Amino acid sequence: MDRRSFLKNSALGGGAAAAATLAAPAYAQGKRTLTMVTSWPRGFAGLADDAELLAANISEISDGSLQVEVKHAGELVGAFESFDAVSSGQADMYHAADYYFVNQHPAFGLFTAVPFGMTTTEMNAWYYSAGGMALHHELGEIFGLKSFLAGNTGAQAGGWFNKEINSPEDLQGLKFRMPGLGGKALGYLGVSVQNLPGGEIYQALSSGALDGAEWVGPWLDEKIGFQEVAKYYYPASFQEPSAALSLATNLDVFNSLNPAQQRAIQVSSASNNVTNASRFIVENGDALERLASGGTKLMEFPDDVWDAFGEASQKLYAEFNEDEMFKKIFDSYMASMKNTTGWISRSSDAYRRQRDRVMGL
Amino acid sequence: MDRRSFLKNSALGGGAAAAATLAAPAYAQGKRTLTMVTSWPRGFAGLADDAELLAANISEISDGSLQVEVKHAGELVGAFESFDAVSSGQADMYHAADYYFVNQHPAFGLFTAVPFGMTTTEMNAWYYSAGGMALHHELGEIFGLKSFLAGNTGAQAGGWFNKEINSPEDLQGLKFRMPGLGGKALGYLGVSVQNLPGGEIYQALSSGALDGAEWVGPWLDEKIGFQEVAKYYYPASFQEPSAALSLATNLDVFNSLNPAQQRAIQVSSASNNVTNASRFIVENGDALERLASGGTKLMEFPDDVWDAFGEASQKLYAEFNEDEMFKKIFDSYMASMKNTTGWISRSSDAYRRQRDRVMGL
Repeated sequence: MDRRSFLKNSALGGGAAAAATLAAPAYAQGKRTLTMVTSWPRGFAGLADDAELLAANISEISDGSLQVEVKHAGELVGAFESFDAVSSGQADMYHAADYYFVNQHPAFGLFTAVPFGMTTTEMNAWYYSAGGMALHHELGEIFGLKSFLAGNTGAQAGGWFNKEINSPEDLQGLKFRMPGLGGKALGYLGVSVQNLPGGEIYQALSSGALDGAEWVGPWLDEKIGFQEVAKYYYPASFQEPSAALSLATNLDVFNSLNPAQQRAIQVSSASNNVTNASRFIVENGDALERLASGGTKLMEFPDDVWDAFGEASQKLYAEFNEDEMFKKIFDSYMASMKNTTGWISRSSDAYRRQRDRVMGL
Repeated sequence: MDRRSFLKNSALGGGAAAAATLAAPAYAQGKRTLTMVTSWPRGFAGLADDAELLAANISEISDGSLQVEVKHAGELVGAFESFDAVSSGQADMYHAADYYFVNQHPAFGLFTAVPFGMTTTEMNAWYYSAGGMALHHELGEIFGLKSFLAGNTGAQAGGWFNKEINSPEDLQGLKFRMPGLGGKALGYLGVSVQNLPGGEIYQALSSGALDGAEWVGPWLDEKIGFQEVAKYYYPASFQEPSAALSLATNLDVFNSLNPAQQRAIQVSSASNNVTNASRFIVENGDALERLASGGTKLMEFPDDVWDAFGEASQKLYAEFNEDEMFKKIFDSYMASMKNTTGWISRSSDAYRRQRDRVMGL
């Protein structure tokens, strides 16, 4: 069969053409376009551009057999419609934070961030070597998705406050912006939780409509300019000790791809997982130094505030663990966290503490 | 041109055939075999098997256009001859720890492990987002290599001792096995440094010919059985706060590959970087728990011993920084470490400390 007829074949598009090429040798592949929708506004640093890098990697290493076209939030579907678009087959894949989809299933939250959950290193350990990925697939498959971790913003910051938080009592009645599970936990502690969109937080802090807010971390917070309208910054947070991002492909589409293309998606996702996390570390590091030298006061919550965060998080867990699938994944997640933290704290953490002390970093 | 003639063409092998296919479309690729030599004995957990995974990923996502065949240490060349074999073109790529090749250039040490240097997270941040990869390429190219990080054992342990180390004086005259830069630094502190091969350490500890030894970390240390012949284990080490592994491809070979194949090598290397590190975290976590419950005493060096390690490391740096290329890379490495550590210590480290306290982990 010549190349022209293969191209014609694949121009039939969709699953049929792809299925026809499954058993065919490499040279028999035509070009196939996959649409990736994202939950990020076009141009959003660290998220939209790294989704584009992922699309480019898949396209490049498939040698043109796949062409991944990125449609950012609002270009094909809205930011939070990406899940349904891919699940239904309207789009082929999404790049998003899976905790946006806790209404589809609460267990998706476990594949982005959990209050008092895992750091990036711990998350990857669980995902790649302690059963996390298989559970991600199991959960995704209920909704017709093949899901892979494909990015991580690293630790998100505890947020900006217009006063010091010296005890749990200081949280009472505080008007604070925090969405998701973290916000829900803060609600248990007497915080008046507000869910303003990103674009409105600055103004609300400035006018006093908010006493504080959490957004992402130093890099992206500084871009918005929160340092101009709030004085105290708490880098460590209980709510998002890391925030993993996912690439999910429609399961029928994924199954119609040949093994090379499937592996390209898997391997490119893992590559983006480490490069995206690395980018956030570097940019956050630089930004935090600028914030500190610009007068922002870097703070840490006292132990009893952390204790209160912990109690609130336990309440959340109890609630969600009523769901069987959630509990199955949660138990695996927590077991891995427990198994790895002793080694991490006694090796890397102990080392970093001593190194920074000795070298005066 | 039909497939048969392409296959015949590529059967000419080597650069010529590959160059001929550079401008050809995807279906025009023949199959090309690349030989990967490694520095690992066949079957060595975490190293040999993960090199095989890397080879399989590259082969799979190239859809058969590349077939990477792995030759472990001693199968084509010896463990430490892999560098010269690839540099000279005898083999196509190596998977190894670049610090084995400090005799070729001392700066290769910076791409595996440096006393008082970076953890895995910090290393990746530098490598992918603060200039490290470009410098790795620049260094490799001097020797005709295209190098990418492609694994990390994570933090290596401080090692096994038959007595507690309570002060720098306790190191005087200690017969201790530690190779590389760490061993050199220990030598400055009055340690009688021994460089026994892995297979002889157990016996030497058992007979008292050694007072202590460093090998890798809990997972691999436990496999050898050091817990049977030494009582005190120091998980945190100054000498290898992480140990990155590299995949280096002969530069002419790399340049003869098409962009899809080149990207497959790059992306697969990054993927292995995160999956390999994750595996070590999980396995080390499990092993450390077993060691502790089996009676091994987990220790931490006191501050003044860390201070002594720091002084010895500074001496090393001064020596190596006389080399201009080393200094250029070292300065970039240290600048990145300094820029990222503030954020890491105030976010993830602070968080982990509080989380483990609150949750009793």
